[in-house]
Amino acid sequence: MINIVINPPESEWEQLTQRPQADFREVEQAVTAILDDVKRNGTSALVNYTAALDGYSGSKQMADENDFTAAEQNLDAVLKIAILQAAANIEKFHSAQLTTYQQVEIMPGVVCSKRALPIESVGLYIPGGSAPLFSTVLMLGIPARIAACKNVFLCTPPSQEGKVHPAILFAAKVAGIKQVYYAGGAQAIAAMAFGNAAIPKADKIFGPGNRYVTCAKSQVAAWGVAIDMPAGPSEVLVIADEQAVPRFVAADLLAQAEHGPDSQVICLCISEGMARAIKTETQDLLKQLPRKDIAEKALKYYRSLVLENIEHCIRFSNQSAPEHLILSVEKPEKWA
Amino acid sequence: MINIVINPPESEWEQLTQRPQADFREVEQAVTAILDDVKRNGTSALVNYTAALDGYSGSKQMADENDFTAAEQNLDAVLKIAILQAAANIEKFHSAQLTTYQQVEIMPGVVCSKRALPIESVGLYIPGGSAPLFSTVLMLGIPARIAACKNVFLCTPPSQEGKVHPAILFAAKVAGIKQVYYAGGAQAIAAMAFGNAAIPKADKIFGPGNRYVTCAKSQVAAWGVAIDMPAGPSEVLVIADEQAVPRFVAADLLAQAEHGPDSQVICLCISEGMARAIKTETQDLLKQLPRKDIAEKALKYYRSLVLENIEHCIRFSNQSAPEHLILSVEKPEKWA
Repeated sequence: MINIVINPPESEWEQLTQRPQADFREVEQAVTAILDDVKRNGTSALVNYTAALDGYSGSKQMADENDFTAAEQNLDAVLKIAILQAAANIEKFHSAQLTTYQQVEIMPGVVCSKRALPIESVGLYIPGGSAPLFSTVLMLGIPARIAACKNVFLCTPPSQEGKVHPAILFAAKVAGIKQVYYAGGAQAIAAMAFGNAAIPKADKIFGPGNRYVTCAKSQVAAWGVAIDMPAGPSEVLVIADEQAVPRFVAADLLAQAEHGPDSQVICLCISEGMARAIKTETQDLLKQLPRKDIAEKALKYYRSLVLENIEHCIRFSNQSAPEHLILSVEKPEKWA
Repeated sequence: MINIVINPPESEWEQLTQRPQADFREVEQAVTAILDDVKRNGTSALVNYTAALDGYSGSKQMADENDFTAAEQNLDAVLKIAILQAAANIEKFHSAQLTTYQQVEIMPGVVCSKRALPIESVGLYIPGGSAPLFSTVLMLGIPARIAACKNVFLCTPPSQEGKVHPAILFAAKVAGIKQVYYAGGAQAIAAMAFGNAAIPKADKIFGPGNRYVTCAKSQVAAWGVAIDMPAGPSEVLVIADEQAVPRFVAADLLAQAEHGPDSQVICLCISEGMARAIKTETQDLLKQLPRKDIAEKALKYYRSLVLENIEHCIRFSNQSAPEHLILSVEKPEKWA
């Protein structure tokens, strides 16, 4: 199922770095209709979409104090510790990025400065469907808190029973987010972009999502609401030299592959032996994965290439510009 | 012609902060056709559009050493000094922004860092039509040089005689840009996005332009080429208290108004007297402007509001989020 390509000529690189292009044409009209409806009819439109698309039609539209407490009580202790550890790490890394007020006198009497000011109202979108992305709650919510954004809130689709995954609620609490609204998909993006009786208007919307969510973000961006960036399918490129541990590389590849059926994984080696060893480990590890079905579909896009040397691998990687790059080589600092 | 609105209720602010929305629907199809053509047919398509749209059909497609020398010789000495002074100021300001390599050990043995790396290939678009934006050459080219971008080049539409304004060439030289290509409009954006025999492929495209250029940038962004941001019409908002000099405020307003017929200028005062004085000075100064016709059209969008106090002015400004904000008040640092 996985072909190893040996020393492809550079003229073929462009074709080999092609990625599955997100095609919004199918969903564009549906998304525009949802945006218009939610803009015009506010909460009532939102409630209708939540009933139709998420199968939840209760009157409760956001998590309350009891939900947060229950989430903390019911969540697996090991996962809780992992979330707290991740939060501490994220806090440490991003705190170091707080910029200082910078003044430069560029001519006598002319003082220029550059200042970073917090965005006032920040809306986060957290997918809930096939995997509750509580790590994203931390990655987005903690920097917003460090930056001192005044109002940070979160939309995520509820279950049919009107529940949000406890890991999302616990992560929100850890990140200092108190407002967790029951809204998913394009309708959640519309609600945050325009604001309504239930959900505040965001100055900027952050967070990943499926094609509907991404298309909605692109559309509201044209209406003047800021967005982080349109998120495409997940990608990883690993460069592995002869000292790489095939099983570790395989785990890295699969960790990305299990993100979604359209995730793209590329592995660059400098020997056919290593490429084969990684391929074998990947197929072996795949069998143990809880999200085996998804990862297996993504492996359709697995590209295993053997190039002449690390310089070529780096050049290929720069041309491909993957979302994530892993250097499983000697002296990675040198190549970074 | 200019109405002064006194103390409008906050419920009307949203309507008062409306801006002329760029509407790309008219140009969208034309732009797509140009992009497709230039992508498919490269230089020959580009040459055809330059002949049809800029009226230049010579064989020379970029500025050579003689053009740079002639520009330097022919340019007005006062303008040359101004460009050199501006370049020195820009260099000083942006050099102070070079970030340092940051390492944080977030857990024992886990070192995270954030690095800014230069973009390899940077394409600048510089409009040439109604005003040669040589200041933009400096504002974009000098930071790219400071960041150590490997390849920085520039596209600008040629005159019918196949010339580029000497101020653009001189500014390019000062910014260290050697490649100045004769290409304008959507076709220049397409050439930089896809690359062809004449013009290199850019990793990121920067620079302002008319609706065709902006629409082309949005479209190539969807194809994976990075862009700075879609530039809308120019805007300025001035907050003037009782100590403001009406003639200075008027000059600031008109400086923006003369950018284009759709530029938006807003003036917020805390007394009707000041609003009237600024209005009078604006009408008076307008008569002396070389770009009087353009500024006069833009003054259609002039909004003069009298609000209760500076706090209200700041709130209005934050809601409007203008491109440029000028605080012509006592203790501006306090309000910034």
